[in-house]
Amino acid sequence: MPTFHIELFEGRSIEQKRKFVEAITRVTCETLGCEASSVDIILTDVKRENWATAGRLWSDPEPSV
Amino acid sequence: MPTFHIELFEGRSIEQKRKFVEAITRVTCETLGCEASSVDIILTDVKRENWATAGRLWSDPEPSV
Amino acid sequence: MPTFHIELFEGRSIEQKRKFVEAITRVTCETLGCEASSVDIILTDVKRENWATAGRLWSDPEPSV
Amino acid sequence: MPTFHIELFEGRSIEQKRKFVEAITRVTCETLGCEASSVDIILTDVKRENWATAGRLWSDPEPSV
Amino acid sequence: MPTFHIELFEGRSIEQKRKFVEAITRVTCETLGCEASSVDIILTDVKRENWATAGRLWSDPEPSV
Amino acid sequence: MPTFHIELFEGRSIEQKRKFVEAITRVTCETLGCEASSVDIILTDVKRENWATAGRLWSDPEPSV
Repeated sequence: MPTFHIELFEGRSIEQKRKFVEAITRVTCETLGCEASSVDIILTDVKRENWATAGRLWSDPEPSV
Repeated sequence: MPTFHIELFEGRSIEQKRKFVEAITRVTCETLGCEASSVDIILTDVKRENWATAGRLWSDPEPSV
Repeated sequence: MPTFHIELFEGRSIEQKRKFVEAITRVTCETLGCEASSVDIILTDVKRENWATAGRLWSDPEPSV
Repeated sequence: MPTFHIELFEGRSIEQKRKFVEAITRVTCETLGCEASSVDIILTDVKRENWATAGRLWSDPEPSV
Repeated sequence: MPTFHIELFEGRSIEQKRKFVEAITRVTCETLGCEASSVDIILTDVKRENWATAGRLWSDPEPSV
Repeated sequence: MPTFHIELFEGRSIEQKRKFVEAITRVTCETLGCEASSVDIILTDVKRENWATAGRLWSDPEPSV
């Protein structure tokens, strides 16, 4: 019954999402030995202004060195 | 202090959400014996292109048999 | 396809959890008009030292007034 | 490697988010002794119609006493 | 920067988890075109008494037909 | 009403958690202008065998170069 929540930057096409969830489901069944029907995946499209690493929003420019 | 995160397909009306959170809160207090004021519920409206089961996006047609 | 993640303080008995998920599922179907089989609920038992409100861990004593 | 998911009502400006994630990252490094580069923060803007406390949606008026 | 939260029933060996996260990371990079170093995966081992489908805890026996 | 879910490697002392949530709550109120009583923080202690970056479990040794 694996349930996935996956956060990724917004901007992926439906075609990319389709291939992504197909591949994730396939390798999950292969490595965990479960039925495809038990794999649920929920994607969250995150805006760059809502994700920060090292205290910097990804919508802000990287500091020049 | 139960805190709920509930993901559901987008498209519910506010009236449906209102009845839903009222009922969830009521039965939570009844079965867990807690105060209504301690029950927090956050809903997430999920697009069908962001939810997959068995490797298929819910925005894609079901395969014919 | 509603999927619930519910965080609650540890210490609930299995009997309480059983009644709780039964009731949550029932009122979800009633108010959202979905099939019981589409309702998934995942509970997380949270230690009081891992939950804070107003900056105070719930494992710490409330300040006397 | 602390990873934050923070839900807050929608309506914050980017400037508020910028100061917020800077401050959160700074105090995390100070109190946990970790590198800023290991701190990831994901914000979720929640509509008032998607958050309920005590069984009432925050988009609904408070009951008069 | 995909970040995964994956809930699965407890009981997987470290060797299964190792193969699982390797495979998930590989197909994520292939289908989304991202760097492996940007893929973070957090697993949550869930007890059967903490997961319910259709209102039944997975620790409880299935009803006989 | 900011609600935080924070995942961090297991092994923090209660004293570290106490200082951490105090500081997080303080800077949240300062930068977002909210009441301390509206800030909820839930910590999740994650085992190193349950966290992977770049396809490697943190419980596994780093590859030598």
